[in-house]
Amino acid sequence: MTNLSTEMLSLITSIPFLATVEAENAPIVLSGVLLSLVVIYLASKLGAEVAKNFDFPPVLGELVAGVIVGVSALHLIIFPEGGLTSADSVIMTILQWINHLSPTNLASVFASQSEVISVLAELGVIVLLFEIGLESDLRQLKEVGYQAVVVACVGVVVPFAAGTVGLMMLFHTPAIPAIFAGAALTATSIGITSKVLSELGRLTSKEGQIIVGAAVIDDVLGIIVLAVVASLAKTGEIDVSNVIYLIVSATVFLIGSILLAGIFNKTFAAVVDTLKTRGNIVIPAFIFAFFMAFLGNAIHLEAILGAFAAGLVLDESDARNELDELVKPIADLLVPIFFVTVGARADLSVLNPAIPENRAGLLIAIFLVLVAILGKLVTGWAVFGQPEINRIAIGIGMIPRGEVGLVFAGIGSASGVLDKPLEVSIIIMVILTTFLAPPFLRIAFGNPIETPTTGENNPEPALVEKSQPIP
Amino acid sequence: MTNLSTEMLSLITSIPFLATVEAENAPIVLSGVLLSLVVIYLASKLGAEVAKNFDFPPVLGELVAGVIVGVSALHLIIFPEGGLTSADSVIMTILQWINHLSPTNLASVFASQSEVISVLAELGVIVLLFEIGLESDLRQLKEVGYQAVVVACVGVVVPFAAGTVGLMMLFHTPAIPAIFAGAALTATSIGITSKVLSELGRLTSKEGQIIVGAAVIDDVLGIIVLAVVASLAKTGEIDVSNVIYLIVSATVFLIGSILLAGIFNKTFAAVVDTLKTRGNIVIPAFIFAFFMAFLGNAIHLEAILGAFAAGLVLDESDARNELDELVKPIADLLVPIFFVTVGARADLSVLNPAIPENRAGLLIAIFLVLVAILGKLVTGWAVFGQPEINRIAIGIGMIPRGEVGLVFAGIGSASGVLDKPLEVSIIIMVILTTFLAPPFLRIAFGNPIETPTTGENNPEPALVEKSQPIP
Repeated sequence: MTNLSTEMLSLITSIPFLATVEAENAPIVLSGVLLSLVVIYLASKLGAEVAKNFDFPPVLGELVAGVIVGVSALHLIIFPEGGLTSADSVIMTILQWINHLSPTNLASVFASQSEVISVLAELGVIVLLFEIGLESDLRQLKEVGYQAVVVACVGVVVPFAAGTVGLMMLFHTPAIPAIFAGAALTATSIGITSKVLSELGRLTSKEGQIIVGAAVIDDVLGIIVLAVVASLAKTGEIDVSNVIYLIVSATVFLIGSILLAGIFNKTFAAVVDTLKTRGNIVIPAFIFAFFMAFLGNAIHLEAILGAFAAGLVLDESDARNELDELVKPIADLLVPIFFVTVGARADLSVLNPAIPENRAGLLIAIFLVLVAILGKLVTGWAVFGQPEINRIAIGIGMIPRGEVGLVFAGIGSASGVLDKPLEVSIIIMVILTTFLAPPFLRIAFGNPIETPTTGENNPEPALVEKSQPIP
Repeated sequence: MTNLSTEMLSLITSIPFLATVEAENAPIVLSGVLLSLVVIYLASKLGAEVAKNFDFPPVLGELVAGVIVGVSALHLIIFPEGGLTSADSVIMTILQWINHLSPTNLASVFASQSEVISVLAELGVIVLLFEIGLESDLRQLKEVGYQAVVVACVGVVVPFAAGTVGLMMLFHTPAIPAIFAGAALTATSIGITSKVLSELGRLTSKEGQIIVGAAVIDDVLGIIVLAVVASLAKTGEIDVSNVIYLIVSATVFLIGSILLAGIFNKTFAAVVDTLKTRGNIVIPAFIFAFFMAFLGNAIHLEAILGAFAAGLVLDESDARNELDELVKPIADLLVPIFFVTVGARADLSVLNPAIPENRAGLLIAIFLVLVAILGKLVTGWAVFGQPEINRIAIGIGMIPRGEVGLVFAGIGSASGVLDKPLEVSIIIMVILTTFLAPPFLRIAFGNPIETPTTGENNPEPALVEKSQPIP
């Protein structure tokens, strides 16, 4: 089946006919993208405003709104995965009704539109991490560096070990899927936690810096674990040279960026001053951010890691305050696509206990959720030499798995390592940790440092902070 | 062949295997998109700055830079059209070298990446037209309304008639391809002319308003002509009900938008005031712009027409000045993708007279270019009751065909109506009119109203004008 499909795919993509089909469908793909974006923006704005009214972080509202418009409920934003076809998509049904497409063309439009929205969401998380990098103070991150490393290591080792051993002992899961599921518990979602921290005005607090630093480090550690486990699943043995390569490249990448910051941001300021045409700040900044993201991807780490490093570097640039203002509307437009699609892709129907085949998964899910929460909660007590630090806030801040956990679930199910109950359990773990962390983080931190409702023109406390000059 | 291909495509898109391939390739598609964007931004910025140094409009530099990185020279930004495959793309070669992809996966990544860049370019022209709409004063457009209609009609009828009759009489072209090529001469590219006008600070001049107004109208007229000719080519007779439907919907769309402006911008201001979370202005504005663009596409007109109408409506809103500032960085990031890809797609090798089969096309091309230039140049003398108006500037402003002409060439070649020499001639006509118009427009208008080099922070004279309060 797979071989036959590969051949057919090769044949299809090599014939000029496909290009013709794509050219004819181009305006309809654009229609689909535009309508999807309208739905995503409406959902994100409604969700954020409702959450704000109930005193929840807006990002939680965006996620819930994403779940509502996604595969779990309204079927407006869905993707061709998990057996879903264009017939399941309300937007495709609308396009079909307007354009009277053939089933072939409709499937092709659905695939293209989903691809574009997926990449826009990925650009959204890249811009989000770039903005977070810009907002992070490099010197402060250096101060909490050791603390962040310890927190990250504890937060990787504890859930990985407890998850893997627990699955093998309690549920008699075979070793390789158990290791894979354990690995899926390792990586904290920096995106969600950072946005909540930013909303609470705590991104630059010691706790915030440790969480973000540790999340970056355990992202790297998590991806190394994923690469190792994925190659373990393929070959049956750990590829030592690959492990060494990944560890070395990740280290060189981040430390190299921090060391280059001093040199590069002078060059950047000089370039910006030379340019006389429109976009003289924003275009060089995004050339750098996208190139670093590409580099992160190219050396088999993650694009978001490169974007974050780019933000850290430009954070020390002279044009920083102006750049912050210019990146804001771009982030406002791209970041909601990421959060809404994360919600939209999460299929809550796998939580339904009425369906018998979900029950085995539910037990595993409950176990994984407990390990995921407790395994990260303990990290707060790994911080040393800081008696008055808010340990529970650090632990809670490390809990959400978000997009990174979904990457694990996606690769695990694509490679066939994970069976259905285990895959479903990882998704449930991702959803619950993502949904639980923001309100608990809010409770752990108490009230925001600056009340978010002080002024309608400055709804974001973190951005108010940023407009103040650096001491 | 076509039937077999359709069946295989249907089979391919319906099997879950494809989704797996896409999930595995997703990080590589993202790498391709990021690297393409880096190349596009580098090219656009270098091109714009070089053009500016030689006192040409930056947009011309962006187009030339696009040609250099595109299919004509460096093969960095190319698309799977005209027989090009992933093996021709330098970016794909780099990705192949990094990721060691199979030919099947490489072709799939190339197709996906090209699709994403194409849609980003289309979003770029949508944002460009939205911004132009925001910069256009509705009351002034109403004042020049009748003038614009006359200029548009003359600019559609003269090149259409001269092109069609000339091809049939001089080159013995059959009626249907001759009519199609004649139709390809009708639609002025509003994007390029508007950007040049904006750079010269002439967008709000009487000439500028007539050109933009006429370009909008002849875009609509051109698309009606295209729809009629395309259905003529398919069925052998003109579909009267479709013609009436298109004429009515286009009229209702634009006039309806202008009438609704007064009501809607009050609602918009009220919504913006209610919202308390980030993106409170930019998200509602883009919901409206993208919805109008979708609507433009859905009623089988053009997305850019909807975006332009949305800009016109919000131009009268109270939040306009703030919105202008927020749209600017978004436009800076998306619009260059459009201009660079227009240049990148244009294959200048079809101009090479050394290849015998180009010679027949060259004669037709010379004829079409002359008709394209003269047919629009006469429109300046169609303006009545304005003795002191700059007639030659209006005529030149109507000359560039740009993206709209390329749409004609694309649909004509995809539907098989146009033979190779005629298709090549239309592409040459599009390239030359696009390249010739900006410098000549500059000469016709003389010096910019405000010198663009007055301040590095305000490189765009049109934007300086916009920051002044409305009287």
